[in-house]
Amino acid sequence: MQDALLALTNYWTERGAMIVQPFNTEVGAGTYNPATILRVLGPEPWRVAYVEPSVRPDDARYGENPNRLQTHTQFQVILKPDPGDPQEVYLGSLGALGIDVDAHDIRFVEDNWASPALGAWGLGWEVWLDGLEITQFTYFQQAGGKNLDPVSVEITYGIERILMALQGVAHFKDIAYAPGISYGEVFGQSEYEMSRYYLDDADVATNWRLFEDYEGEARRCITERLPVPAHNFVLKCSHVFNVLDSRGAISTTERANAFGRMRSLARQVATLWAERREELGHPLGLAEPPALAEAPADDSAYPKIDEPSTLLFELGTEELPHAEVRRTAEAVREGLTSRLAGTRLTHGDVRTYATPRRVVAVVEAVAPHEPDAERTVRGPRVSAAYDADGNPTKAAQGFARGQGVDPADLTRIEQGGAEYVAAVRTEVGRPAARVLSEVLGSLVADLRADTNMRWSDPKLSFTRPIRWLLALLGEQVVPVAVSALASGPTTRVRRTAAEPVVTVPSADGYLDFLRRHEITASPDERRELVVAASRSLAAQVGGVIDLEGEAALVEEIVNLVEHPVPILGSFSADYLDLPAEILTTVMRKHQRYLPVRAGDGTLLPHFVAVADGSCDADVVRAGNEAVLRARYEDAAFFWRADLDVPPEQHRRGLAKLAFENRLGSMAERADRIAAVAGRLGELVSVSGDDATTLARAGELTKFDLASQMVVELTSLAGTMAREYARRAGETDAVASALYDMELPRTAGGPLPATRPGALLALADRLDLLAGLFAVGANPTGSSDPFALRRAALGVVSILRDRPDLAAVTVERGLAEAAERIRAQGVEVPEQALADAREFVVRRYEQQLLDAGHEYTQVQAVLPLAGTPALADQTLRELYRRTSDPAFGDVVTALQRVRRIVPADVARGYDPAALTEPEELALHQELGKVADTLGPEYSLAEFADAAGGLVGPVNAFFDAVLVMADDPAVRAARLGLLASIRDLAAPVLDWDAL
Amino acid sequence: MQDALLALTNYWTERGAMIVQPFNTEVGAGTYNPATILRVLGPEPWRVAYVEPSVRPDDARYGENPNRLQTHTQFQVILKPDPGDPQEVYLGSLGALGIDVDAHDIRFVEDNWASPALGAWGLGWEVWLDGLEITQFTYFQQAGGKNLDPVSVEITYGIERILMALQGVAHFKDIAYAPGISYGEVFGQSEYEMSRYYLDDADVATNWRLFEDYEGEARRCITERLPVPAHNFVLKCSHVFNVLDSRGAISTTERANAFGRMRSLARQVATLWAERREELGHPLGLAEPPALAEAPADDSAYPKIDEPSTLLFELGTEELPHAEVRRTAEAVREGLTSRLAGTRLTHGDVRTYATPRRVVAVVEAVAPHEPDAERTVRGPRVSAAYDADGNPTKAAQGFARGQGVDPADLTRIEQGGAEYVAAVRTEVGRPAARVLSEVLGSLVADLRADTNMRWSDPKLSFTRPIRWLLALLGEQVVPVAVSALASGPTTRVRRTAAEPVVTVPSADGYLDFLRRHEITASPDERRELVVAASRSLAAQVGGVIDLEGEAALVEEIVNLVEHPVPILGSFSADYLDLPAEILTTVMRKHQRYLPVRAGDGTLLPHFVAVADGSCDADVVRAGNEAVLRARYEDAAFFWRADLDVPPEQHRRGLAKLAFENRLGSMAERADRIAAVAGRLGELVSVSGDDATTLARAGELTKFDLASQMVVELTSLAGTMAREYARRAGETDAVASALYDMELPRTAGGPLPATRPGALLALADRLDLLAGLFAVGANPTGSSDPFALRRAALGVVSILRDRPDLAAVTVERGLAEAAERIRAQGVEVPEQALADAREFVVRRYEQQLLDAGHEYTQVQAVLPLAGTPALADQTLRELYRRTSDPAFGDVVTALQRVRRIVPADVARGYDPAALTEPEELALHQELGKVADTLGPEYSLAEFADAAGGLVGPVNAFFDAVLVMADDPAVRAARLGLLASIRDLAAPVLDWDAL
Repeated sequence: MQDALLALTNYWTERGAMIVQPFNTEVGAGTYNPATILRVLGPEPWRVAYVEPSVRPDDARYGENPNRLQTHTQFQVILKPDPGDPQEVYLGSLGALGIDVDAHDIRFVEDNWASPALGAWGLGWEVWLDGLEITQFTYFQQAGGKNLDPVSVEITYGIERILMALQGVAHFKDIAYAPGISYGEVFGQSEYEMSRYYLDDADVATNWRLFEDYEGEARRCITERLPVPAHNFVLKCSHVFNVLDSRGAISTTERANAFGRMRSLARQVATLWAERREELGHPLGLAEPPALAEAPADDSAYPKIDEPSTLLFELGTEELPHAEVRRTAEAVREGLTSRLAGTRLTHGDVRTYATPRRVVAVVEAVAPHEPDAERTVRGPRVSAAYDADGNPTKAAQGFARGQGVDPADLTRIEQGGAEYVAAVRTEVGRPAARVLSEVLGSLVADLRADTNMRWSDPKLSFTRPIRWLLALLGEQVVPVAVSALASGPTTRVRRTAAEPVVTVPSADGYLDFLRRHEITASPDERRELVVAASRSLAAQVGGVIDLEGEAALVEEIVNLVEHPVPILGSFSADYLDLPAEILTTVMRKHQRYLPVRAGDGTLLPHFVAVADGSCDADVVRAGNEAVLRARYEDAAFFWRADLDVPPEQHRRGLAKLAFENRLGSMAERADRIAAVAGRLGELVSVSGDDATTLARAGELTKFDLASQMVVELTSLAGTMAREYARRAGETDAVASALYDMELPRTAGGPLPATRPGALLALADRLDLLAGLFAVGANPTGSSDPFALRRAALGVVSILRDRPDLAAVTVERGLAEAAERIRAQGVEVPEQALADAREFVVRRYEQQLLDAGHEYTQVQAVLPLAGTPALADQTLRELYRRTSDPAFGDVVTALQRVRRIVPADVARGYDPAALTEPEELALHQELGKVADTLGPEYSLAEFADAAGGLVGPVNAFFDAVLVMADDPAVRAARLGLLASIRDLAAPVLDWDAL
Repeated sequence: MQDALLALTNYWTERGAMIVQPFNTEVGAGTYNPATILRVLGPEPWRVAYVEPSVRPDDARYGENPNRLQTHTQFQVILKPDPGDPQEVYLGSLGALGIDVDAHDIRFVEDNWASPALGAWGLGWEVWLDGLEITQFTYFQQAGGKNLDPVSVEITYGIERILMALQGVAHFKDIAYAPGISYGEVFGQSEYEMSRYYLDDADVATNWRLFEDYEGEARRCITERLPVPAHNFVLKCSHVFNVLDSRGAISTTERANAFGRMRSLARQVATLWAERREELGHPLGLAEPPALAEAPADDSAYPKIDEPSTLLFELGTEELPHAEVRRTAEAVREGLTSRLAGTRLTHGDVRTYATPRRVVAVVEAVAPHEPDAERTVRGPRVSAAYDADGNPTKAAQGFARGQGVDPADLTRIEQGGAEYVAAVRTEVGRPAARVLSEVLGSLVADLRADTNMRWSDPKLSFTRPIRWLLALLGEQVVPVAVSALASGPTTRVRRTAAEPVVTVPSADGYLDFLRRHEITASPDERRELVVAASRSLAAQVGGVIDLEGEAALVEEIVNLVEHPVPILGSFSADYLDLPAEILTTVMRKHQRYLPVRAGDGTLLPHFVAVADGSCDADVVRAGNEAVLRARYEDAAFFWRADLDVPPEQHRRGLAKLAFENRLGSMAERADRIAAVAGRLGELVSVSGDDATTLARAGELTKFDLASQMVVELTSLAGTMAREYARRAGETDAVASALYDMELPRTAGGPLPATRPGALLALADRLDLLAGLFAVGANPTGSSDPFALRRAALGVVSILRDRPDLAAVTVERGLAEAAERIRAQGVEVPEQALADAREFVVRRYEQQLLDAGHEYTQVQAVLPLAGTPALADQTLRELYRRTSDPAFGDVVTALQRVRRIVPADVARGYDPAALTEPEELALHQELGKVADTLGPEYSLAEFADAAGGLVGPVNAFFDAVLVMADDPAVRAARLGLLASIRDLAAPVLDWDAL
């Protein structure tokens, strides 16, 4: 291992990197060493490499887990500015480490990076070696909240992982560290003991005190304008935070709070550092941006073609995120099509293709030139253009000169009834190459993705760096210049090819040309390759792959490779003892492997990994199998450890998880949820088995948050509760309720299937909303650290899904939650509850609008939003009646009523004061309608019944003066109308229509 | 610089060292990395090399000082076990760094190392490159309070210093760090900012809190048996302690307290670590000790000589401490002489010589053999040896057989009046070589110095490793085997010689042989070389060297080299503006340079450095000059900074130096000292100028402790007070008093020359004693962290020196000090004062005994020890009279009196009860003597007067029965004797004689 570190050190020093030492304060990653996080700021160049023992308390496993270490060794490289070919240089370093890049499957898999604590983010990849993440490769975009210019490339090698793979050992302790000495012999004891400290023995109160003290010193240093020691203390804050976290002593809200404090410090440090470097005159000089490319100014410099030819345009990128591959192809197709439409160039079909490294556009039959075109330019009025002698005036002469025509050639046109002189000019069609140069240039310059980044290029911005442009018209290069990029006749094929850059002879047949270089440009074609090969590989072991169910995963895989080479791998059947969700979560989310199942759907101990292009299949299979084994070993470790602990004990463990300073521990929160769910159950008259289930599930609420598996794989919350509860002998109903209560996990995701589960899910979200609004932690602007939007959407979705829970209104639910919170001594202002309700209603409103409902109708039903199922029903009814003229008459009549009655007039009136026949008729009809409706009625019922009121209302308004002089009469008339208004009010906001 | 680190890394990995990373917690030195401080414990082998950025807050200088950095880079090597030739391997590494070891003067200068905080110590050297310390080289003997077996060699390179020398730059910022990038460009900002934090901005309260918290976590980890995290927290304690120290926030007593706590933790960590390694079964195996050497068992294997020959014996060592060079030569001479005396081997003169690397013994005319000798062994009595027939009995036969003689050859001897048979055996003289083999072997095995160490040898122990034995008798090797060492015919000459190991042809002419290899074995000869050459070099610049005054330094220099080569160097005359004490302190103490002075004694800007053996004089001169310049630059920095601050402000600065928790700050201590000194001044009736001086000096007491110079060079305390006071316009008398009050600095050192200085010096020490005894910080056993022994000796020495201060007794002085301490609200128990007095008296007693006074006489004057000047005078008188028979009679008579009177009988009696003439005579004589003496009298006066009592006392005892039956008579007689007893009591403890 020490040889590997020396090899990397030598490799990078030979490439101009300076060597510095690991930082002498615990850091979670080499990134936090000031040699990275501060040096990436500002305009000075910086090229550095160093080893960094990186401390991750929550990876502590007592040295038992083969792949997790509380301190692992990073080798960190910073290239500032981006040298333009960092991936290629990086691959060279793998060679220096002795990795045969031809035999292995080496991949750049989207992995963006953000450190909330440091206000930093970047875009980049994990580098995979046969499925094993061996390096983080990031283009730093921001640090300390500041945009970085120039952008730095950060390359972080995970040394232990690389060496385990290189040395073929299954446990980090078996790595040969130095001649005759293993890693375990050197570091084993330290791994065990530091794990003990981080997991079991660190004193929580002491570490919180340290956090405060470090923060104080950081602040003091900032005040004194000393970014270097300030940063040091920010790192110390971060480390003790991590220690507290691994001790399970940090709640979501505390996390958000601590992150906020650290982020604020980090931003100030970054700002100060940048200022100080400027004050010091940038001791290391300024980085030079690359020169801009230029396209020829003169048409003659562009190639000429004689007949319609094929345009080939390729945009070469570093590996795109899988979701951007097809999207970019489509964007290029649209952009090209619309831009061509803006020219006079004729052409045939525009087709685009894409892989992670390229977008290829092929336009057939592009005409050699634009046709010439005539253009008429209006000049002065005829009356002003010629003098009495019919000679051109100075105005006309000036116009003609300006247009470059002879005054004698001016013609006349009529516009708006006036006559003007005009010049007619022939615009000579430009050569196709010239036109395409501009079109393609602007296409590239304007290309954007959802998330964009900067790299060495001085102007461009895209989801990943654009590194080359290939533009051929037939067999000739179309000169395109965008920022620092200039087009050429070459493309880049596989980086490991003998000749990675090849010249493309012709635009025609390019897809075949690429195929010969083992690149399949069409995603659909890649998909077919994946599907066919995977199916056949699965069949070899008597299995199948649920290609329908895995459609999203297949699509992702297709866009992770330029040429898919599925490989069948296996794992020990012993792992099949673990719940299938765990196994498939790991396969899909972490490894992008397709699970292989038996005919009955049960998992087989096999998987299909998809490599990119040809490689040594045995090597790649073995590598992927080792990675999966390691991950399963991890999961099995948690599983066994968790099963040793009964749910009740996990549940008690929640007391150690703080939730929020004022709202107490996660245990207190779970207690509140159980109580609120019970109360909601009473509201909806839960009884029998459901009542039993609700009570028991309430006792165990959220117990799995204390399990190691969920701490590690948070997406398995609920899933693990179900599994652990079942294995602990709880009923299926209880297990299901515990699973259900975490639903929906995403907007539009599955909802609770059981009533107890739905009640618990509601109680969970209501407690969150009421509690955090009560303590003033409402979401503001784009910041929603506690995911209250998701919680609100969950409440709405569940209530919409379950009319049987209509007794639970949003208001009532929040009030119940508030009661439990108040019982803990926390003040819950009524205004906070009103705000929380409003917040939920806004989410509902948005949901309806997003679903395409008309704005006015949505507004009309919003008063019912507290009972979303009812509002939904009303909205459906409203939609159904929207073209019904009878309903329109009801609306008109009611609006007429509402317009005339002041809001402060109460309903009710003295019928004896009514005298006119029209008002008496209305009084009688109102009585009939009210009798028909009874105390509760839907919009449908009301609308049906209220039809009878339309005539009397209109007659009343035609004949009766509401504002009579006699106050008693006036009061009775207004009261009558107010009664109608109030009868209509509960079903709809009529004014909104 | 990064190339240098890589070169060292490669050099040491090629020699089997493992590479580890710097530690990720601030450490003051690579030693504290667990890869050293823990790994040196226990029996496992360990060979490691690493870079360690070492944080020394009190070396922070804002990056301004050319040689001081708050973080400097160490390269650390641990070789466990000692490979046997670590110095040679180390010198190879200098070559790898590009240092021409032939041109430079490279030296191993005694420098022992101890870390009280870690309970660790070792013996070794600073390695000097032309006077510049570039490496610490230590044989680790103890860590965490545990003896180390095997011993580790620790080599610590100071990288910045080495590179400044190699690159010839005068400021660390100018070191070329990487191609095109200077050290200052990379680290300058960090140096400035971290200096700001350490010197100005670190919050004292926060850092104390951190200390407590870290200590708590360390304790917790120890309880949990986790030495690794515990050690981590000990390091954190140590770092914040250093931060507090550089903020000037730590007093002597707090330092002692904190060290005590850290040492206790470190010991526990070490013990735990060793236990844990054992529990883990010593994962790295066990180090193998070297095999023992064996001398031949058979005489025939020893060389034979025919005529008296010269014995040459050389003990080859690694560089001895200078003070041990002559001492070892003498020990070898004595040991050899006495051992030879124990043999029958005749020989001529025994002479020894020594250099730092060898002790040479030459014995002339050693006889070829011991002469044969007859030995008579007594057998049974003759009566039992022969039967009636005169035949030998079985007893006689058995005896003869046992002695290997024929029964017929038995002779007879007479012993104690009885007659025995006896066997007479001829012991054949052993060959000289055989005899010498044993003699030399035991000599080496028994050799010890004041401080001894262990190294790779399994049995030997000496002040530095013994690496070779050369033993020749004439031209033949005497086989000597001691532990793992075996003698041979070779010696080692200069390590840089083409042939560093050479064969010695003959014992004769060895000193010349060595001279040819540029080694001068005789210290006296080396001294002559130094004296002659220095004198002549100084003369070249018109200067002289005070060789008398520098005798101790010359003696040190002589024993630092094998062959002295004095070199004249110069420094900028600008530095002569600094006080000469500073310049000479630096020259002598730090550099062992001889100062060159003008005829009038003023310093010239030159010095003489003494190199070891031939080298490139220009290179060595330049190197030494650069070192001195750097040191003077440092001193000038402090000097200027200190002069900017008036003494009063420094004095106020003492408030920031805590002295002891309960006793307050150093300012409070200074206030107390001034008050006590004033009170003592009243006691001795100080008046006039002395009174003015005492008052003013009191106001400024100890102000220089807050100056940077004294913080850096503590030995200049007092000296700097004098300099700064003078320059601030204080009178010479005040300046001298401030200087005097720090005297005596050592036992036997100069005492205060002025009365105000003496009073302040007393007050200082009395406050220290009273205060620390009051708070229970008395010295215990060998632990005396507050140097109270020295303080007590100071009190005694000053009071002995100044009879004019006799009014100040130890009791009175302590009482005055206690009063000021109590005024601060600190309780001072009377018992504490009594203990403090007793402690002072014990020091006085020891001082007297050490001076050779007789034990009984010392005991006799101890009751007067509270006034040491009086006790001294009494002791002198006692000594004078000791052979005076008249005084002997007085003593006898008084002792007779004292024996008969019970201690509880009070003096005084009713003369009327006396009846016998002898008792009446005694009564009368006693009255006369008492009248003569008056109320106060010395021993001399008493002894003269008491002569008259001898006769009456003796007559009394002869004639009178003291214990008369009549109680009144008995009482009167006892009272009479008690009166005599009490009259004698004040001048002496008569019983002690």
